[in-house]
Amino acid sequence: MADATATADRALQYIGSFKKIVGDGFVFADAESLNNYAHDETENLHFLPGLVIKPRTVGEVSAIMKICNEQHIPVTPRGAGTGLSGGALPQFGGVLLSTERMNSILDIDERNLQVTTEPGVITEVLQNAVKEKGLFYPPDPSSRGSCFIGGNIAENSGGPKAVKYGVVKDYVLNLEVVLPTGDIIWTGANVLKNSTGYNLTQLIVGSEGTLGIVTKIVLKLLPFPKYDLLMLVPFNSLEKAGEAVSAIFRAGFTPSAMELVEINALKIVSKFVDSAVVPVTDEMEAHLIIEVDGNHIDTLMSEMEAISELLTKYDCGDVFFADDAQQKAELWKLRRRVAEAVKINGYTIEEDTVVPRAELPALIRGVKQLGKEYNFDVVCYGHAGDGNLHIRIKKEGSIYSLNNPEVIPALRALFELVKKLGGTISGEHGIGLIQKEYMDIVFDEVQMKLMKGIKKTFDPNNILNSGKIFD
Amino acid sequence: MADATATADRALQYIGSFKKIVGDGFVFADAESLNNYAHDETENLHFLPGLVIKPRTVGEVSAIMKICNEQHIPVTPRGAGTGLSGGALPQFGGVLLSTERMNSILDIDERNLQVTTEPGVITEVLQNAVKEKGLFYPPDPSSRGSCFIGGNIAENSGGPKAVKYGVVKDYVLNLEVVLPTGDIIWTGANVLKNSTGYNLTQLIVGSEGTLGIVTKIVLKLLPFPKYDLLMLVPFNSLEKAGEAVSAIFRAGFTPSAMELVEINALKIVSKFVDSAVVPVTDEMEAHLIIEVDGNHIDTLMSEMEAISELLTKYDCGDVFFADDAQQKAELWKLRRRVAEAVKINGYTIEEDTVVPRAELPALIRGVKQLGKEYNFDVVCYGHAGDGNLHIRIKKEGSIYSLNNPEVIPALRALFELVKKLGGTISGEHGIGLIQKEYMDIVFDEVQMKLMKGIKKTFDPNNILNSGKIFD
Repeated sequence: MADATATADRALQYIGSFKKIVGDGFVFADAESLNNYAHDETENLHFLPGLVIKPRTVGEVSAIMKICNEQHIPVTPRGAGTGLSGGALPQFGGVLLSTERMNSILDIDERNLQVTTEPGVITEVLQNAVKEKGLFYPPDPSSRGSCFIGGNIAENSGGPKAVKYGVVKDYVLNLEVVLPTGDIIWTGANVLKNSTGYNLTQLIVGSEGTLGIVTKIVLKLLPFPKYDLLMLVPFNSLEKAGEAVSAIFRAGFTPSAMELVEINALKIVSKFVDSAVVPVTDEMEAHLIIEVDGNHIDTLMSEMEAISELLTKYDCGDVFFADDAQQKAELWKLRRRVAEAVKINGYTIEEDTVVPRAELPALIRGVKQLGKEYNFDVVCYGHAGDGNLHIRIKKEGSIYSLNNPEVIPALRALFELVKKLGGTISGEHGIGLIQKEYMDIVFDEVQMKLMKGIKKTFDPNNILNSGKIFD
Repeated sequence: MADATATADRALQYIGSFKKIVGDGFVFADAESLNNYAHDETENLHFLPGLVIKPRTVGEVSAIMKICNEQHIPVTPRGAGTGLSGGALPQFGGVLLSTERMNSILDIDERNLQVTTEPGVITEVLQNAVKEKGLFYPPDPSSRGSCFIGGNIAENSGGPKAVKYGVVKDYVLNLEVVLPTGDIIWTGANVLKNSTGYNLTQLIVGSEGTLGIVTKIVLKLLPFPKYDLLMLVPFNSLEKAGEAVSAIFRAGFTPSAMELVEINALKIVSKFVDSAVVPVTDEMEAHLIIEVDGNHIDTLMSEMEAISELLTKYDCGDVFFADDAQQKAELWKLRRRVAEAVKINGYTIEEDTVVPRAELPALIRGVKQLGKEYNFDVVCYGHAGDGNLHIRIKKEGSIYSLNNPEVIPALRALFELVKKLGGTISGEHGIGLIQKEYMDIVFDEVQMKLMKGIKKTFDPNNILNSGKIFD
């Protein structure tokens, strides 16, 4: 299956059938279209599909899959292409199946606090639609303004709110899925509790489009909290900031966000978005962004006070409270655009390490040490409350690709450290193409054999997003 | 594998090897021991194992499994035997593997708000141990005073707190599992977010001991909430009580418990535990037990007031507030012992239906209608906030077994109704032996084939708890 030219040829052979299924206007073989779907937000990866198909309905997806399964044509499902692990790239050519036209919110069920949606809806569009009814869908990756909810399910995405509200998997009640064979199933029922058979729903969430194509999604919603308060706290020491994170939870607080941004990253992003909201001084090493939310403003104010009082024990500077909606938006903009800003400034390959929360200081120490050892400049930021630290590296005069022989041993050392601290390779981005080289660090042959057995059960001909997660 | 005598013989052949593994004192073949493990809390089921083995360590479990896998000896894992779906019964004889000696809490990690435990720890013991450190493990099945945490994981148990805090699956971070082959794996990492490979952790949770034997469990904990308030609200109409449930959530409240008890059940249990705490009058059809919890008592008081104000629209009677710890304990005792009380009073076969929350009134109406149609007396109670309704039936002069020809069509009609309402067969008890006859109502052949394929990947010789969930 590895020969992309051969699979492109096979896909092209059936272009007539595909056009019959989705309509002439939604099958593309021109160079520009193919090129548009050859990359995502992961650096330095480029794989051309043989064909791009944009189905509208579950029936069309099923019909496409039946042909591809019979003809052994590789299929790569794709949402908005905002992924950071290369999970939506057509490594083996064949058919690129874009869900962009399956973009309707089908039902906001206010009686049951649920929403049923198609996969091609932008996460923020969904969030805003339910918010209009007073409802809340918390998972909010940084890319929420452009990523699709379907992609979020494929990668089991998180975001800042995960620390209080959980990740995507905690909101998915039921999924309509087209299997690689073309069969259509629902994985469960639209209920809050379910002990009926194996949890197929949770098996699909985070399976990175390798087990099936999600065509409808039922999500649990919450009442939208009435108030939130936001503050930014500077720390003289990056490690102390890490220690403060764990102390806050241990003291019984449950913030709705607890983000860490290292000083270099904050400087870069402040300049990038031209913001002066945060006074950045050189003696600070890191900042925490802390949010609390709820229905009682007095309670939140007293919580914020208690948290900032606690933080004084961790060598922090003056706390900056966001006074109004505009200041809050400004602070969140800084946080959400960090990745983009540091990327443009030469920090490549966003890693997605995750460790038990209290191991964050040890991870930060280790990362800085590895930077020195391998002669990289390293920058850290991420969802500190979850122990989920994003790490990017930079070396002057050098552009890193993933198979760069200088990068591989450094990343291996990083993931070995993460494993030693009780953590794992990816907290919210998925393994995709770029991390699979390191899966042996966290899984042995027995676990890999189980995963491959599950893959084979779902996809006997290995046509769906094959080569992702594992070979 | 269906011949229990033959499998008992095969198991007995290896009694010497098993004794070498776990020690002479922990392998049992005497009639009394075998009989003790031949039943659980499910009515009218009795299956004798060939041998009972009580290992202490993961290494012992692995060694036992290796022999059984090679010799094709059926193995039934068992926790405390409090299950309500026959999931721990040795239908095919062979080896009954009891986890009762694996009963240590290994580590309460206060820095990371996690606990690592063996499976044979009683749920309430675990809850109390972490509570001493100010920590909270919410899932609390009614049997929490006797059931094991390992069994809770097998069935993905819930309980009253699930409505706010989620079920077992929402707390399991990582599992050590002995596979049917004897291989030992960890399913994930001790982290709050994980997008690294397929979610083996969530596949094991709720798999009813058919995919592996859980030998260590890492659970997420929360800070223990400082306060809770409890009230009991009588309703003139059972259906109105159901409507009130959904209205409370729609109004933006998130109670920490929202239980429904029908008047017949309440009368029976009040007499059973000799309690006069609740004034039971004949014009009432049902009661809701509503709890709120949190760290700010003023907030909770105002929430309780707002909820009781809202309930007046649903034709409720005088609200009874539990004034102190003793009254709260009394109320909870009533709720927790309902199942036992109605069972002793002739209501058999506890069903575990679950529907989207707002469909509860339709389910209740339907259940009563079916009772009339099939000439059963029906009693309802359960976790109304989750749409999880337990139903028991009674017919004077008749003792029902599961394959009773009068019962099967009635249950089939019930589950068809549940399916029609968007729900499913089991919310928290599992399928086990007693519901598998009805799996075709909620899953078609494609889904069943996937589940069986997963089973085969984990258990190629079909020795581990086979015949549960599906044949």
